[in-house]
Amino acid sequence: MNTPTPAYDELSATYARLYRLGHLQSLAGWDQAANMPPKGNDARAAALAEMSALLHRMRTAPALASNIERAGHEPLDELQRANLREIHRDWQRSNALPEALVQRRALAAARCEHAWRTQRAANDWSAFLPNFREVLAIAREEAELLSQRVGVSRYEALMDRFEPDMRCATVDRVFGELRQWLPGLIRAVRQRQAGEALVLPQGPFALDAQRRLCEQVIAMLGFDFDAGRLDVSTHPFCGGVPEDVRMTTRFCEADFLGSLLGTVHETGHGRYEQNLPRALLGQPVADARSMAVHESQSLSFEMQLGGHPGFVARLAPMVAAAFGDQPAFEARNLHRLITRVKPGPIRVDADEVTYPAHIILRYEIERPLVEGDIEADDIPALWDAKMMELLGLDTRGNYRDGPLQDVHWPEGQFGYFPCYSLGAMFAAQWFAAMRRGTPDLDARIAAGDFAAVFDWLRDNIWTQASRWTTDELAIRASGETLNPAHFKAHLQARYLG
Amino acid sequence: MNTPTPAYDELSATYARLYRLGHLQSLAGWDQAANMPPKGNDARAAALAEMSALLHRMRTAPALASNIERAGHEPLDELQRANLREIHRDWQRSNALPEALVQRRALAAARCEHAWRTQRAANDWSAFLPNFREVLAIAREEAELLSQRVGVSRYEALMDRFEPDMRCATVDRVFGELRQWLPGLIRAVRQRQAGEALVLPQGPFALDAQRRLCEQVIAMLGFDFDAGRLDVSTHPFCGGVPEDVRMTTRFCEADFLGSLLGTVHETGHGRYEQNLPRALLGQPVADARSMAVHESQSLSFEMQLGGHPGFVARLAPMVAAAFGDQPAFEARNLHRLITRVKPGPIRVDADEVTYPAHIILRYEIERPLVEGDIEADDIPALWDAKMMELLGLDTRGNYRDGPLQDVHWPEGQFGYFPCYSLGAMFAAQWFAAMRRGTPDLDARIAAGDFAAVFDWLRDNIWTQASRWTTDELAIRASGETLNPAHFKAHLQARYLG
Repeated sequence: MNTPTPAYDELSATYARLYRLGHLQSLAGWDQAANMPPKGNDARAAALAEMSALLHRMRTAPALASNIERAGHEPLDELQRANLREIHRDWQRSNALPEALVQRRALAAARCEHAWRTQRAANDWSAFLPNFREVLAIAREEAELLSQRVGVSRYEALMDRFEPDMRCATVDRVFGELRQWLPGLIRAVRQRQAGEALVLPQGPFALDAQRRLCEQVIAMLGFDFDAGRLDVSTHPFCGGVPEDVRMTTRFCEADFLGSLLGTVHETGHGRYEQNLPRALLGQPVADARSMAVHESQSLSFEMQLGGHPGFVARLAPMVAAAFGDQPAFEARNLHRLITRVKPGPIRVDADEVTYPAHIILRYEIERPLVEGDIEADDIPALWDAKMMELLGLDTRGNYRDGPLQDVHWPEGQFGYFPCYSLGAMFAAQWFAAMRRGTPDLDARIAAGDFAAVFDWLRDNIWTQASRWTTDELAIRASGETLNPAHFKAHLQARYLG
Repeated sequence: MNTPTPAYDELSATYARLYRLGHLQSLAGWDQAANMPPKGNDARAAALAEMSALLHRMRTAPALASNIERAGHEPLDELQRANLREIHRDWQRSNALPEALVQRRALAAARCEHAWRTQRAANDWSAFLPNFREVLAIAREEAELLSQRVGVSRYEALMDRFEPDMRCATVDRVFGELRQWLPGLIRAVRQRQAGEALVLPQGPFALDAQRRLCEQVIAMLGFDFDAGRLDVSTHPFCGGVPEDVRMTTRFCEADFLGSLLGTVHETGHGRYEQNLPRALLGQPVADARSMAVHESQSLSFEMQLGGHPGFVARLAPMVAAAFGDQPAFEARNLHRLITRVKPGPIRVDADEVTYPAHIILRYEIERPLVEGDIEADDIPALWDAKMMELLGLDTRGNYRDGPLQDVHWPEGQFGYFPCYSLGAMFAAQWFAAMRRGTPDLDARIAAGDFAAVFDWLRDNIWTQASRWTTDELAIRASGETLNPAHFKAHLQARYLG
């Protein structure tokens, strides 16, 4: 049978194959973190590297270039055209890098990340440096090649891997604004909270009860357990595939809130994946839009909903049922616990208000690092200065909870960090749009009715996948492109209102 | 660098790639049984089918044929020559089948197996027939093609997939002998056991305690938990990869022995895999020799060791510690429970003595079925007649616990069944050889010293992998090829001695 779009159809079939093989890669990655015994690591790494090389060869097969060229002249509908745009984007990035560089990058990252695990624990920055210089050198090579191909700056070329079309001018603008008012806001919130009575929960909290509570909350948040699981791993994440989402958490007997809110966070990622357009799965147009949009979902769940007094009022009796009643579990106190603001050195432990400071700091270091304006050796001094400036913390000599704390740099994932705070801003923007459409949104949340939230996210974000650029998506969903004013308004309303 | 064996080296590299990609396939298969939520099934099936097609294309790439031909003239050492023999065997079987047949086979098996799950529960033989006729027709096609290529009979060609070089003349001879003395032996054992007092365990048995007990026993049997796991699945199996062995079991509150002995069985498979020659992993010469040899390991553990009075005496206090003391857990009574002989309709529930009757029955049906001498419609009548003849059971109308009980036929796995009983015979043969080398073997086992058993299996079976043909392996290990006299002697000594 002749179709009117033979080149497009061939592309589409190739990407469906990539998707099916990627399924096995994704599952093996999840298993590595959640199940794999230690001696399985070498064989797993070799299997994953073999698959990466195979997928890279499929992505750089010569037939793709001519099919992409020819498909551009075929009578595609609007959805197909969006898919072709995403295919072209994927093709362009894959073909910008020679296979040798891809392999060197994987090896250097694996070596650096593996050694980092013990170097971090040992607070050993100088032992970390040689491996990290290699990772950085390769990232700069990659940035240079991508930059030439895509026509943006080197840092933008790396950031673009996670956040398509995001440019430094935008990041500079929104982070620049944030930088103006954030330290003052933190001070004001801290002052106000200093006068509040706070009852601390009394542990230990049995792990079984924590797991059951997490599963109840996840189910309340609409996660489909017939199409996903919750397991345990050292570093929580959301993996798997849209048809079978694998979320992980970690439990600690002394504290249940970290795991509970972490699970709420992953549930945001999980529901996005579970609600991507089913019929299109396997095509790039059905992928989640970007990492900032992904984080906007996890933060819609964890911060917008999770820190909402109405939501916390629903949570409080569940917590009491799980662990037995305590004064600390009274709804108002539980809300104070969840929204407590306290500057600390560690990003993943940071509250909603101080979190952006951690991101601004990393952006202001990794951008000149990639551009070649500073070197790896310059990081600690810059880190200490910015920590003092932004959060008033003295971090000198504490590399473990300083520049060694995140896995992103050892793995060469430069350009990812901004997505966290861009995501927080988008989340505030989505909730502002929801409130315009549903003026009694907060009363509904307080009544335990989250349908308005989930329906809005499903219709405006989840099912839209990569059909639109991020700017188009934001405009269609909220009437404007990224606008950090909503994030400021959200923090002021919640913490100073 | 020029090597003196360029063709062999290329083959070896290709098979290393197949091994690494097969790792992901194997892991996904384990996950499907142990973890996957129901809605993940379609995407998983598509991913596995894509990978199967990819591996089949790699195995049938034209370059392999010429490399195999050229490698035959290269200066290979004995291990390389054994590897080339196994590569050639794999290549020959893969290339005998056109890709279209491989795909039709996979689809028909998946359809038949999927429908069988409900048809079995509904005891619905006639609904099963149409799908099964299709599976059978394809198996006959496959048998015909393989038969022409390998030069053996059609049933032999299918059996050879699981048990290389095994011929019907051998199976006929050993099963024929067995058929002579087995019904009489069963009667004699039943008569003797009828006079024995037997105390039944009183449940329920908490699942947590069952799991801990299983893990203790597995560890006592030398399984390396740093290179493997125990999980739960509906049908217990041993999967994963040699570097990361994934065993499964199922727990039932009313009965702990089934799960415990099932786990001992899987541990035999698991230790074989964990002790395949490490340096050669990835090459076919490092694969487990055959399915009969694999079953000889699981049955060495489950039957030779698991039913050994000395081993049961070690087990008894562990059982009492797990569930609290009971009269039933006294060592002598526990041994009677474990070695109780009782004809029943279900193969997987059968004891060591009646088990071969189930296999002989299946062999006598599936062989003429594949050869075209009988049709699918003839199965129930043959089944009923043979069940009455071999075990004295009336199975008429009970398809669920009759010809619908096993997954092998719905999946088209004709030729596998004989491996179970050939494995039981090999296991008895291995233990007879061990006793010749270590005359106080039984006293050592009774003293909880299993080193002589494990050392013998490791040196003679596990680390030998596929270096020798099965006949060579048996001769090197025990001085003779398969000799069913050892199995008869074992049953007589244990049950009538």
